[in-house]
Parts: sequence; C-alpha cells; structure tokens
Amino acid sequence: MNTDIYITGTGQTPFGEHWDMGLRELMDSAIDSAIKDAGISVLDIDLVIVANMLAERTSDQAHLGAMASSLLPHQPPALRVESACASGAMALHTACGMLESGKVETVLVVGVEKMTDADTGAIASGLMGAADSELDSPSGITFPGIFGLIANRYMYEHSLSRERLSAVSAKHHSNAMANPFAQFRMEVSPEAVTSSTTVAEPLCMLDCSPISDGAAACILSTKHQSSLKIAASQIASDTVSITQRESITGFKATKQAAAKAFAEAAIHRNDIAHLEIHDCFSIAAIINLEDLGYAAPGTGVKLYENPGKQTINASGGLKACGHPVAATGVKQIIDIGKQLKASGKRYGLAHNFGGACATCGIHILEHTAV
Amino acid sequence: MNTDIYITGTGQTPFGEHWDMGLRELMDSAIDSAIKDAGISVLDIDLVIVANMLAERTSDQAHLGAMASSLLPHQPPALRVESACASGAMALHTACGMLESGKVETVLVVGVEKMTDADTGAIASGLMGAADSELDSPSGITFPGIFGLIANRYMYEHSLSRERLSAVSAKHHSNAMANPFAQFRMEVSPEAVTSSTTVAEPLCMLDCSPISDGAAACILSTKHQSSLKIAASQIASDTVSITQRESITGFKATKQAAAKAFAEAAIHRNDIAHLEIHDCFSIAAIINLEDLGYAAPGTGVKLYENPGKQTINASGGLKACGHPVAATGVKQIIDIGKQLKASGKRYGLAHNFGGACATCGIHILEHTAV
Repeated sequence: MNTDIYITGTGQTPFGEHWDMGLRELMDSAIDSAIKDAGISVLDIDLVIVANMLAERTSDQAHLGAMASSLLPHQPPALRVESACASGAMALHTACGMLESGKVETVLVVGVEKMTDADTGAIASGLMGAADSELDSPSGITFPGIFGLIANRYMYEHSLSRERLSAVSAKHHSNAMANPFAQFRMEVSPEAVTSSTTVAEPLCMLDCSPISDGAAACILSTKHQSSLKIAASQIASDTVSITQRESITGFKATKQAAAKAFAEAAIHRNDIAHLEIHDCFSIAAIINLEDLGYAAPGTGVKLYENPGKQTINASGGLKACGHPVAATGVKQIIDIGKQLKASGKRYGLAHNFGGACATCGIHILEHTAV
Repeated sequence: MNTDIYITGTGQTPFGEHWDMGLRELMDSAIDSAIKDAGISVLDIDLVIVANMLAERTSDQAHLGAMASSLLPHQPPALRVESACASGAMALHTACGMLESGKVETVLVVGVEKMTDADTGAIASGLMGAADSELDSPSGITFPGIFGLIANRYMYEHSLSRERLSAVSAKHHSNAMANPFAQFRMEVSPEAVTSSTTVAEPLCMLDCSPISDGAAACILSTKHQSSLKIAASQIASDTVSITQRESITGFKATKQAAAKAFAEAAIHRNDIAHLEIHDCFSIAAIINLEDLGYAAPGTGVKLYENPGKQTINASGGLKACGHPVAATGVKQIIDIGKQLKASGKRYGLAHNFGGACATCGIHILEHTAV
C-alpha cells in the first residue's frame, strides 16, 4: 500500500433470518457497532461505501449509498459498489483507493443484503445476475447448477470422490460453533453432507451456502490508527460466463489477485496464518485453496483432511455463517481481524469472489501488535 | 486534484432506442469509440468502472464490471458503481480517486443503460429505487410525481408561471438540433411544452426526460496527457426521501458539492463557460442553476429568458439528448469537453444528480490548450 490504512473499528449483525429488519435497520445496526468499536466520532467519517447486490430486486431499493449516509448525522458523501458476491471486497478495495488518494481520511464500508423476504426462485434468478444473462441464464441453469458442473468436471479430472468433498462443509460447520454471528451453529458430519438432498448433482444441500440477511461494517482510516493494517488490496476479473473459459476447475482471477496481493504485502503465502475463503459451494473452497497456492491442483481437499499451517474459514465460512451476498466480503475482514488478535499472528488473508470467480478481491491484513 | 488527471478519449452511442443492442453491445460501441479517440493501446487500461442503475431489473444482469472487462483483450480489474441517476458522476469520482491513489494510471469509465426493452411501468418502478422504498414508494408516487410536488411548491414560493417554466425544455430541444447523438433533434416551442399531456401536475410530457438506451465512455489517465484535465471532482449526499428535507425547492447536495468543486478547482463560478446540468425534469434545471449560484432563489428561469455568461445544456441536456440513467453523467463530461474545445474557453462544469438530488456529483473540466 502507498499509505498506512488501519482497520479502526468493525461491527456486524448476526447473519440469518431478520424478519423484523430491513436494509436500513441492518445497516444501522452494523454501522453502530463499528463506530462504537472504533471509538471515534461519527463525524470523522468522510465517505460511505455500501456494498450490495440484490436490493433493487428484493427490496425495490437502489441508491443505498445515500440511504446509508442518512443514517449518520452529517450525511457524508456516499456511493454503492456492486460486483455480485464480490461486492464486499470491491467496496473495501474502492475504500482503500480513496484513502490512498488523500481525498478522504476515514471511510465507512458497509455490506448489506436482505434476502429472506423473497422466495427462493426470486433469489435464484436474482443471483443469476452474477452470471451472463445472454450466455448462461437462458439454459435455465442457476448457480448450484453452475457449481455442480464445476464439481463434476473437477471430480472427473482429479478423481475426487463425493465422500471426500463432504469434509469441506463438515469442517466449516464445526468451526462455526464458536462464532456467535453464524447462521448455523451446529455440527454436521461428512455423512450428513453426502446424504443431504441433491441440489445439482453432485452437490447436495449441505454443500451450498444459504440464503441470509445481514450487514457487516468496517471503518478504514489513515487518520485513526489501530493494531490492524491493510497490507494488500487487490482485484482481478475473468469472463462472466464459464462457457468462455479454458478451464472451469481453476479460477484465473483468484490466481492473478493473489499474486498481486502477496507482492503488494511483500510476503510469502506461508506467512499467512488465517484464511477466509469464498466457499459459496464446497467445491469452490477446494479450488480456491489450489488457486491461492496452498495445494497443488487436485489436492485441495487434503487441507481439510490434514490441516496445514493456515486456519481455513475459522469463522465457519459462507456455508455456516450464512452468505448475505455483499456483506460476506466485509465480514471476512472482520473475522480475519479477530483471528489475528486472538492468535497473535501477523498476517491473514480474505478471499472473496463473485459469480464463478469472474471478479475476485483479496485483502491481506497485518496485525502489528505482535 | 492531487494529481493531473487527463481526459484522454471519449465515445458514446447515440442515445435513443437501440432494439438491436443489449448492454454488452452498447458498452462495446462506446468503449471502442473512446479507445479510438484516445489513440492509446487498449492494454494501457488498468481498471474499468461501469456505471449502471437498472440492469438487474431490466436485463437480469448484475456484475457489469466483469462483463465490461471481458470486452477488452486483457480483462483488467473492474467494478460497478451505482448511485441512481448520479451513477455516472460517481463512477467518474471513483475513477479520479483510484488514479490519485497511484494504484492505476489509466481508467476506463463506461456508463450504460438499457431501458426500452421494459414497459413503462417496469421502468417507473425501477427508477423508484432511487427514492425511498419505505418512505416514498408506498404512496404510489413515481418520479414525475415527486418532481411535480417540487414544481408545485416552487411555483407557489416563487410565483413561477407554468408558461415561463416551458422555456426550459424548449431551449434544451433547440440546443439538441446540433447534437448528432441526441435522442430528440427537433424544435419544441414553449407553447408545445405547456400544451403537452399532463404527466404529474404541473409537469407535462415535454417537461420530462425520456426513457432511453445508451452508453458513454471516458478514458481518464495520469499517464497519457491531453488538453482536457479534471480540475475538480466532488460529491455530496442528502436524504433519499424528500419527506425528510427542510426544503424541496433547493437541493443541499448540489450546494455542498458545488462549493467543494469550486474550491478544489480554485476558480469562481463565473470562470465557467459551459454548464451541463441534470434536467431530469424542467423544474430541476431551474433549481440546479440556483443551487450552483448562477441565479438567486426563484430567478433561475431568467437564465433561459436572458442567457448569462454560461451556456446551459448546449448538448440538449437530459430532456432532448435522452437519459439512459447511468450513462448521463459520463456523457455530460464528453459534451463539456467538446464545448470547451469548440469555444476555446477554459472551464466547464458537469452537474449530475440521483433521485431528488440525494446524491450529487460535480466535475469541473479544464481545457489547457487555451
């Protein structure tokens, strides 16, 4: 980074079903927690960046930047960033850029999604906006189907069995037991994953992240210091449609963003102690670990069988925490920060992608009070 | 600005009805024109920022950053910015911040909207996403109604007659005669405005900007120079709902953004030669001129009766050029650039707002080859 950017305060709602809260209340709750955590004056916030994907469809609400701004007494300038399920990371990346520009000193990033008011069909078609509406959607496929195709191809190329794949969600559920903000705090055995209802072969219900409401907020500042710094913020793109890819068992955008992020932080991947990776579907977690360089192609599942040096989705990940789409990327940062403070380790990495990784955002956090 | 940011190239589609073009084709056409105009290698583009408001509703397509990126051979990082009808200016503002950060050297901003495929009701309800879905929309009001209320109040406070208001659209239509990209290149008399169908009293059909398809692209660079620089890029927010305002006959966000923009450019408003202002409805143009300081409250219409030093919407404005929502803010920059090059004058100002000016973005351009 050209500038020291500190994570001054964070806050989130529990992820799950919030029947008594709309977009405004969810944002307000997370923002309030973040401001209290930061211990700064709300008037120090120079800019608000809202991450959101679905509100125009599920809540008839665009213009969430201005809506979030109005939750603050001084109504600071505000905008919304959207890059499908990577919206959270892209909002953080935008915030880093604005801070590095010197135009602002303190930025509030809030990711929010209100999904449970809509029926499953409406959510599935809304989420298909992350794919290509001309090249993908007309086939009738939805995202479980897209990742079902990816899983099928991966299992064929690498002889991964259905049973071994089940280790992923089982581990994430087990991790979530310790996270009070997780939507599903319950142990799930690998056998239960394998025997859960088939959603899109070979993926079963317990391979899939759920539909969730939630908000997560993060205050980034060049003015107010803390023990957590952004060591790298990098993004990359790929084709929106998987039909235009050379391979669907590895994601180019993750590889590119990771290479740039490790270079920016000037560290090796082995310096990372904690990983939060985008496990929208179990197969994605395995591919992500390989794309990030923690496992050779075809071997990512081994890190769930014999844990390596890095913790993986200690929060519970998207599967067990829930996946209020645009809140996820912000919540990953919150969790990496907590993990670093708890372990006393120095570096953690948050990996957030949109669609079938047509957009990837990676942030490396540095805990300086080691 | 902390850094010299040059407008290296621009391009746009005609605004209007493009039955044979979707979002991808519209973006591709504008991007292609901008790259050719810039005369740079496409590979120099480090980042793509897409401005869009409605695609999730009208085209089932989110994730437009990645889609635009895939139109370029090297698929650079990309994201989407949305702030209702101010999306274009907010994307430009974000681009300026990213350039000032030093993270990137050349940014492609493309605003796009595909509206004519949807029926008028769907567009009206989609646009209501720019208002407050809890405080405004349940009344059944749509944006012509919101600006009808504003016009009624303004006419009451300032004794503006319906006949005098009609000068605004008449002038914008006359201006559009010289703009090959305008949707409506035809003279419209003030009498024709007054006698056109009432949409939301006192506003008639010819007071309202139309439903349009279109895209506009702009390449901003710190690496490649040109005779056009960004002298100021400023944004401001206000409540999304007009029900929470002290006054609805002046817009706080415009006043704040304008004060910051004139300060950033270190010029007086009288140094501006050309204005492009956000005339989504005729009454808005009058209010904008007052908020920008070019007329005292209640007197904005006089600038249509006795032109001042600044040209106003010489392009034709939203009314006659068309208003493909998120493309408008980018297109304003293109037009100000053309006007400065044609007149040989030094400064021009683009004013773009969202909703009832809950978000305002102002850019001042400097033509350095004077």
